[in-house]
Amino acid sequence: MTSGAPDLSRLSLNTATTKLLTLAEAVDGAARAGYGAVGLWRDRVQEVGADKAAKIVADAGLRVSSLCRGGFLTASDPAGIASALADNKAAIVEAATVGTSELVFVVGGLDANPGPGLPARRYSADATAERDAAKDLVATRARVADRIADLVPFAAEHGVRIVLEALHPIFAADRAVISTLGQALDLAAPHPGDVVGVVVDTYHVWWDPALESLIKRAGAEGRLASYQVCDWILPLAADPLLSRGYMGDGYIDFPTITRWVTTAGYTGDIEVEIFNQQIWDTAGDTVIRTVAERYTALVLPHL
Amino acid sequence: MTSGAPDLSRLSLNTATTKLLTLAEAVDGAARAGYGAVGLWRDRVQEVGADKAAKIVADAGLRVSSLCRGGFLTASDPAGIASALADNKAAIVEAATVGTSELVFVVGGLDANPGPGLPARRYSADATAERDAAKDLVATRARVADRIADLVPFAAEHGVRIVLEALHPIFAADRAVISTLGQALDLAAPHPGDVVGVVVDTYHVWWDPALESLIKRAGAEGRLASYQVCDWILPLAADPLLSRGYMGDGYIDFPTITRWVTTAGYTGDIEVEIFNQQIWDTAGDTVIRTVAERYTALVLPHL
Repeated sequence: MTSGAPDLSRLSLNTATTKLLTLAEAVDGAARAGYGAVGLWRDRVQEVGADKAAKIVADAGLRVSSLCRGGFLTASDPAGIASALADNKAAIVEAATVGTSELVFVVGGLDANPGPGLPARRYSADATAERDAAKDLVATRARVADRIADLVPFAAEHGVRIVLEALHPIFAADRAVISTLGQALDLAAPHPGDVVGVVVDTYHVWWDPALESLIKRAGAEGRLASYQVCDWILPLAADPLLSRGYMGDGYIDFPTITRWVTTAGYTGDIEVEIFNQQIWDTAGDTVIRTVAERYTALVLPHL
Repeated sequence: MTSGAPDLSRLSLNTATTKLLTLAEAVDGAARAGYGAVGLWRDRVQEVGADKAAKIVADAGLRVSSLCRGGFLTASDPAGIASALADNKAAIVEAATVGTSELVFVVGGLDANPGPGLPARRYSADATAERDAAKDLVATRARVADRIADLVPFAAEHGVRIVLEALHPIFAADRAVISTLGQALDLAAPHPGDVVGVVVDTYHVWWDPALESLIKRAGAEGRLASYQVCDWILPLAADPLLSRGYMGDGYIDFPTITRWVTTAGYTGDIEVEIFNQQIWDTAGDTVIRTVAERYTALVLPHL
């Protein structure tokens, strides 16, 4: 690092931010820019295999801050449950192989949802019991708790932490029935802190009136496994999943939230994970540089 | 009402659901369909004047379940504060005149937001303090608490309750910094229950893991001022404000939430407030009939 240059040693490039780059290209770009780590998605890992992915990152002198993602645990039928458990065990093994202890979980939506972003089945005056069961949020959340308990021994054996991600309530129907950091902490509570943790992703939790106290609680319970940053921008993109922006382009108060995370004792990597078509259409090095600039202005001074 | 017909005496048509109808047309349609009440928006009230509006509703034999809306209390400059207080005092007088004790408040967004749905001002490396202040959610929420306290004596004098509406976190930046029912109750807590209450709007709060206990708390504290129902549909409309549907067309578990509201002791009207371009483009009587059918299937059995 050039003397006087900002310290990017805790900055991590989540590979979803540079979606069009291969794993090797993203790692190379992050390393050249002085980042300390990368966060990996399973699709890019599987392209080269977990062993090779681990070598690519290590050879560049970087850490793997997390693997995204396990989850989708809400199925109510035996086949769906078995499939979810098998897939998550594979993800746990992948996390251990690529060299991270943190496996981020997006837990899935309601049975009534036929797929992310899709409408519910048409209303009909019949089939009330089935209709009601498919929209039963309380029961769906209880199933998530059961599946986490199923996976805890396997995760512990492999030295991997199940990192529960609260998703913005905009995604409660179709992507994750964990909607607040408090709920994530409650789901984690029955299990050891080094086996079930939580991630603070600013995009998902910035609006929460209880955020400061929940971050403090996450730290005190030893569950603060990851800090992910990107901004909440308006107007929302047609696909709200892609409605994320560079820090500073939206409405989130990064200095304040970063100070809360720091005060809670977090000393890990700060991962930047931006889903945004315009950013995906931008040259990778430009994205990597812009992320570093915004991190330096809005996050780094508060660590 | 025809013998054997469902009891719609607690059903209220919010005039925003039939946006293209005048106040007189909406009231007429609701009365013919057997509804017991209407919820009024200030624009439709002001077209005829509050006294005339009161007479139209009373002549039809209906109640006014609520007036929408007061609020927009987040300004930080003296002129903005004075203007917000003046406008809300006018709304309080209007509520009393049209004959409802319940004035729904949508409290407004961040200073950084130039208008609902709009982007934040462009990022710049300068002007850090000003930029940070405009995105300070904690301070913005504190100003809302101050403005409520300013308005409480005037509301009490007029027999009108300030009904705080938690908006879905999707609107935290640009429409309302009250994002959960729990936060609304905390803001109400310093004031008497008959002067500051809360509304449970399914669209805004359905995802909240603490919803059952919060509704119970609202009832126990005597603050459960209104129950509004409409569904969360996917995909989101281009303007997410319009992304509401008839009960049953989306993902919300109305039987469960309605039972929670009933258990909390709520005996008031159930207001249906749907912003949806397709529904606005449908003939008023069809909309009024469909709302009644869905209410009868999904809400009424659980009251």
